[in-house]
Amino acid sequence: MKSKKIAIVGASGYSGEELVRLLLHHPFAELTMVTSRQNVGQTLAQIFPKFASHPKSRALRFVEPNAEVLASAADVIFLALPHGVAAEFAVPLLQAGRTVIDLSADFRLKSAATYQDFYNHEHPAPDLLKKSVYGLPEVYREEIKAATLIASPGCYPTSILLPVIPLLRAGLIRPDGIIADSMSGVSGAGRKAEVDYLFCECNESVRAYGLPKHRHLSEIEEQLSLAAQTPVTIQFTPHLIPVNRGILTTLYLTPTEPFADLVGASRVAEKIAAAYQAAYASEPFVRLLEGKALPDTKNVTGTNVLEIAWRLDPRTGRLIVLSAEDNIVKGASGQAVQSLNLLCGWPETTGLL
Amino acid sequence: MKSKKIAIVGASGYSGEELVRLLLHHPFAELTMVTSRQNVGQTLAQIFPKFASHPKSRALRFVEPNAEVLASAADVIFLALPHGVAAEFAVPLLQAGRTVIDLSADFRLKSAATYQDFYNHEHPAPDLLKKSVYGLPEVYREEIKAATLIASPGCYPTSILLPVIPLLRAGLIRPDGIIADSMSGVSGAGRKAEVDYLFCECNESVRAYGLPKHRHLSEIEEQLSLAAQTPVTIQFTPHLIPVNRGILTTLYLTPTEPFADLVGASRVAEKIAAAYQAAYASEPFVRLLEGKALPDTKNVTGTNVLEIAWRLDPRTGRLIVLSAEDNIVKGASGQAVQSLNLLCGWPETTGLL
Amino acid sequence: MKSKKIAIVGASGYSGEELVRLLLHHPFAELTMVTSRQNVGQTLAQIFPKFASHPKSRALRFVEPNAEVLASAADVIFLALPHGVAAEFAVPLLQAGRTVIDLSADFRLKSAATYQDFYNHEHPAPDLLKKSVYGLPEVYREEIKAATLIASPGCYPTSILLPVIPLLRAGLIRPDGIIADSMSGVSGAGRKAEVDYLFCECNESVRAYGLPKHRHLSEIEEQLSLAAQTPVTIQFTPHLIPVNRGILTTLYLTPTEPFADLVGASRVAEKIAAAYQAAYASEPFVRLLEGKALPDTKNVTGTNVLEIAWRLDPRTGRLIVLSAEDNIVKGASGQAVQSLNLLCGWPETTGLL
Amino acid sequence: MKSKKIAIVGASGYSGEELVRLLLHHPFAELTMVTSRQNVGQTLAQIFPKFASHPKSRALRFVEPNAEVLASAADVIFLALPHGVAAEFAVPLLQAGRTVIDLSADFRLKSAATYQDFYNHEHPAPDLLKKSVYGLPEVYREEIKAATLIASPGCYPTSILLPVIPLLRAGLIRPDGIIADSMSGVSGAGRKAEVDYLFCECNESVRAYGLPKHRHLSEIEEQLSLAAQTPVTIQFTPHLIPVNRGILTTLYLTPTEPFADLVGASRVAEKIAAAYQAAYASEPFVRLLEGKALPDTKNVTGTNVLEIAWRLDPRTGRLIVLSAEDNIVKGASGQAVQSLNLLCGWPETTGLL
Repeated sequence: MKSKKIAIVGASGYSGEELVRLLLHHPFAELTMVTSRQNVGQTLAQIFPKFASHPKSRALRFVEPNAEVLASAADVIFLALPHGVAAEFAVPLLQAGRTVIDLSADFRLKSAATYQDFYNHEHPAPDLLKKSVYGLPEVYREEIKAATLIASPGCYPTSILLPVIPLLRAGLIRPDGIIADSMSGVSGAGRKAEVDYLFCECNESVRAYGLPKHRHLSEIEEQLSLAAQTPVTIQFTPHLIPVNRGILTTLYLTPTEPFADLVGASRVAEKIAAAYQAAYASEPFVRLLEGKALPDTKNVTGTNVLEIAWRLDPRTGRLIVLSAEDNIVKGASGQAVQSLNLLCGWPETTGLL
Repeated sequence: MKSKKIAIVGASGYSGEELVRLLLHHPFAELTMVTSRQNVGQTLAQIFPKFASHPKSRALRFVEPNAEVLASAADVIFLALPHGVAAEFAVPLLQAGRTVIDLSADFRLKSAATYQDFYNHEHPAPDLLKKSVYGLPEVYREEIKAATLIASPGCYPTSILLPVIPLLRAGLIRPDGIIADSMSGVSGAGRKAEVDYLFCECNESVRAYGLPKHRHLSEIEEQLSLAAQTPVTIQFTPHLIPVNRGILTTLYLTPTEPFADLVGASRVAEKIAAAYQAAYASEPFVRLLEGKALPDTKNVTGTNVLEIAWRLDPRTGRLIVLSAEDNIVKGASGQAVQSLNLLCGWPETTGLL
Repeated sequence: MKSKKIAIVGASGYSGEELVRLLLHHPFAELTMVTSRQNVGQTLAQIFPKFASHPKSRALRFVEPNAEVLASAADVIFLALPHGVAAEFAVPLLQAGRTVIDLSADFRLKSAATYQDFYNHEHPAPDLLKKSVYGLPEVYREEIKAATLIASPGCYPTSILLPVIPLLRAGLIRPDGIIADSMSGVSGAGRKAEVDYLFCECNESVRAYGLPKHRHLSEIEEQLSLAAQTPVTIQFTPHLIPVNRGILTTLYLTPTEPFADLVGASRVAEKIAAAYQAAYASEPFVRLLEGKALPDTKNVTGTNVLEIAWRLDPRTGRLIVLSAEDNIVKGASGQAVQSLNLLCGWPETTGLL
Repeated sequence: MKSKKIAIVGASGYSGEELVRLLLHHPFAELTMVTSRQNVGQTLAQIFPKFASHPKSRALRFVEPNAEVLASAADVIFLALPHGVAAEFAVPLLQAGRTVIDLSADFRLKSAATYQDFYNHEHPAPDLLKKSVYGLPEVYREEIKAATLIASPGCYPTSILLPVIPLLRAGLIRPDGIIADSMSGVSGAGRKAEVDYLFCECNESVRAYGLPKHRHLSEIEEQLSLAAQTPVTIQFTPHLIPVNRGILTTLYLTPTEPFADLVGASRVAEKIAAAYQAAYASEPFVRLLEGKALPDTKNVTGTNVLEIAWRLDPRTGRLIVLSAEDNIVKGASGQAVQSLNLLCGWPETTGLL
């Protein structure tokens, strides 16, 4: 395989750190530059002692982020920056002919108006929205291979879209009335010095937040609408729980074919099982659980795998689907590397198993 | 106030231990007997070092549970036993003229058939179901005062019933389509030596369980049906999260009066606020949150308080209600002591503030 | 009992919050003023929802700290401020004839030079060092009763001094070679927005810090020297562990009477047991563990109790003493209220059981 | 490289599970058999869903442990069994000409009498003690290469021996008076259904245990005595803290060359630094920290690395050394695989980076 030069902009947050980990061990990715305003001049090993055993971590020093310098240092640039800021780098890097994989929300939506509605500022580069590809490989594999601007999905959206899209596409669930109830580890809040995320404020605590209009709704609903070919509005409640890593999402869905007993449920179950098999049986990073097993974040932490299980409830006529992922891996940096593999023509699982 | 002699049967589990804590500090309750098969002969101080500073903890020794002996030792007997076993003690204690506060599920249902459906064995004393009072003081205060058999509610039911009943009674929400999504601390599983509840199996883990027909559904639906005066079937998903104490419940409800914009929402909001004020403004153990505050288990841990907040979502037309409680206090032992206070004629908050 | 008006300066940190909790429930303390620069104008209930059930929490609003206003509002003022800042308030409040209980390090040392050596700035009010009383009630009970300036001890010092002082005073251990190895919960770092204390930086982590010259050494060594009547230098290593509350200290001591077998150990053991009994048998907040029991922070969390257990090791000739306390209660605010009770002439355990 | 057939006996505990993880991903190890009495007939994927993405996990089923069958299925057999039981398998497997890597304590000591003293039963196969090699590659690399019976070290011993041995060998510290204070995650207690290790008993808790004569002292002292060429007796206190993984050990040592000021300390420091450099500069799995960095278990969790840092204290004349490791990787299964690599002639870091 031909190797590529890779840079990470914003490499000191949790997603940036995970990108560093994945790329240091990636056989074809040559990490050539890492940026971080607060750590300029320090080596990777100094900031992240856990990588210190890797020789490159002692050689590579954080630099100021600069688009021109980045364009000369790398073929593919990961942006692990806040929304709004990411676009400032994406524009010149794309103009310089580089490939950009953006982990922020800046290029996830097709509609600049929706962006403004949810992010409360004008879109910084609306022309690029047509160009960008939503980096969910299980859904947009071919588009990703050809893309130069990847908008890597959010953590909550990944945990909701992968379980729901196959059912919507197969017409097995109604596009209205969808409820997604999610629990996330604290790394989702980023490595920010805020009192709310101090150990003592999160430990022995559970709380909902961002009610009822969390920003991730924008990309979730846009993608579900595309899958359903009709506008979809969902209910989404995120909760903060005291774990470092992991998102568990519980989805409440209504099958299009009603059922009120075990016989009816069994008929519907066959179709759901078939839809999931068709969608994911050969996907390396989606694990369909069998038997009595239910998703548990501890079984996916540190991996790029999303687990799915589901149950039909004859008492209520509903379909309950559960998913578990590592919010920083499949929900962010691992999925971004999965896209990198695709667009570089490397085996999709390289560096992710 | 006139004091009463109190005994606790099954005082070595988490609920039993919390009863011990509350009753040792209760000014009118005289703890005269504690039973525990595995700790016979040991003092309270030996088994629970944290109570060792209390003089009574060094004097009181665990004994074998025996109904006759209990009846002679106490006026009121708390049963902190598994379902099925509790009834074995309740029957002779009631016959001996004693008052029983049962923390198990044995007397929570009015229907022996529903009990058998959910607990998989015949009800051990169906005649007592007529006699028992569901020990939710905010709903059955007067009945509790006159009762001799209290069936103290389950932890999940408390977190669901208190937020939902006032809305159903006021006709503000539809009785169908209710979804309750709950997260519980590990103490809810009891002090049982099972691999599933080891530290390393629960820490850095989130998982659903008991899907889709958890036993607590039986009492939740019976009580909601009484409030709605029509049969209610709900969707309920419990999750296990790595905290010792606390339940957070997120409820998805549909207002009977539809709304699709902020004006409509504001009209509905007034009625909901009024219903909650009417129900709980003067309740000492229900806290209606204001402004941007949302329930957080860390704000109720160790207390008998249940927090409630709610949001209307104009995008979906739904009402989201959130509650937080300490599963072992308001969800079990604290609520049981609240009933004790009522039936003994003591101020309801005695020993609970 | 005659009540007193009490104010808390710096009531928004962890120690300040715990003082609020203790004083809201204290039968003779009338909390009249709480200050916090960042929360001016907010009620206690708004900042600390968990106190919202207490009527006073809805009435009392945070104000700017101002010595003159504080002097007019309260008889006794608690200072829960950083070192250096505390003295700025203590001086005028004492001049105005008020009693000050300071939880900072400003008045714990007798030597201004030692203060400067350990805190890296000149002592702000050296004249007051003669006047201040070290607020460790088990050691300075009579002095506290008569004091107007209490320097309430640090959390680590409390966990070390209470186990060691009786042994030094009785001449049972050598004053040299003492090692104190401590583990503290994260609340010890305060409610400060720093990346190092974020949930994800502390959870699944254990680390030492402040090596080898932690600031608390200054007061520990001054107090041990007084007890031993000879200069004492100790080794002290604090560690940060992922719990909210609690300090466990393991002390390595050398008995003055050597022993190398079980017979010798048994002779020494009798004297140690006698010294601890003499010192603490009637102390309400020191619990001497018996039998196989060892201190566990979970048995003291939320209480003002310090647990002590010890073992002689015939293999090494050493005495191992272990202590456990809640760093915010016995290690800070609870102990400060214990001093308040003493100087107000109230029963020492008031509001602390 | 030539691959080898590998079996794991006792693959359902935490060490066994980690061996499975490491060997599934090892390029030259062919995992042919896993045993577990309670999981007979189940696939690896069913018992450990997190490995389900690996094709072999769906093919390999747990079998009853049987020495004859194991000998025919594998070249090298890992024993992840309790002490006493391990020897029952080691004896016939060695007789059948197989290589055994034992993770229990059965073959770690040279003295059967010491074994009996610490493990309270007669040694089950004392003849093998001469044959076995202590599997600490940084100390016994050449012996491991030639061994057929490896006694893989305990978790605490590894965290103590690697920091102390180079200093003893270089004569830089005194062999008497050594103190090791360790904190371990709960996985060290094994996947055993015991109340003491339930989530609620460990979370928000810190406690010492096994005082003062923990079993691991036997192998620690035997190895230190060999390094010092004189009998060494140490003080060792293990503590249980609420993390899944990781041991942090703080060592209190006395340099042979006294120092009482910064000049003296600097002279001693040079020698210590040189000794550590000589011992570990080229070791792939020992990381000597520089500057202000101190060991933190979160930087080694999931890796085979042991971190070391040290400080001289001119106030006390002592040397403080700190180490951090993952108790299940470098402290157990990772180190055992490191030995496997050595004895199979594979690069030592294979499958461990």
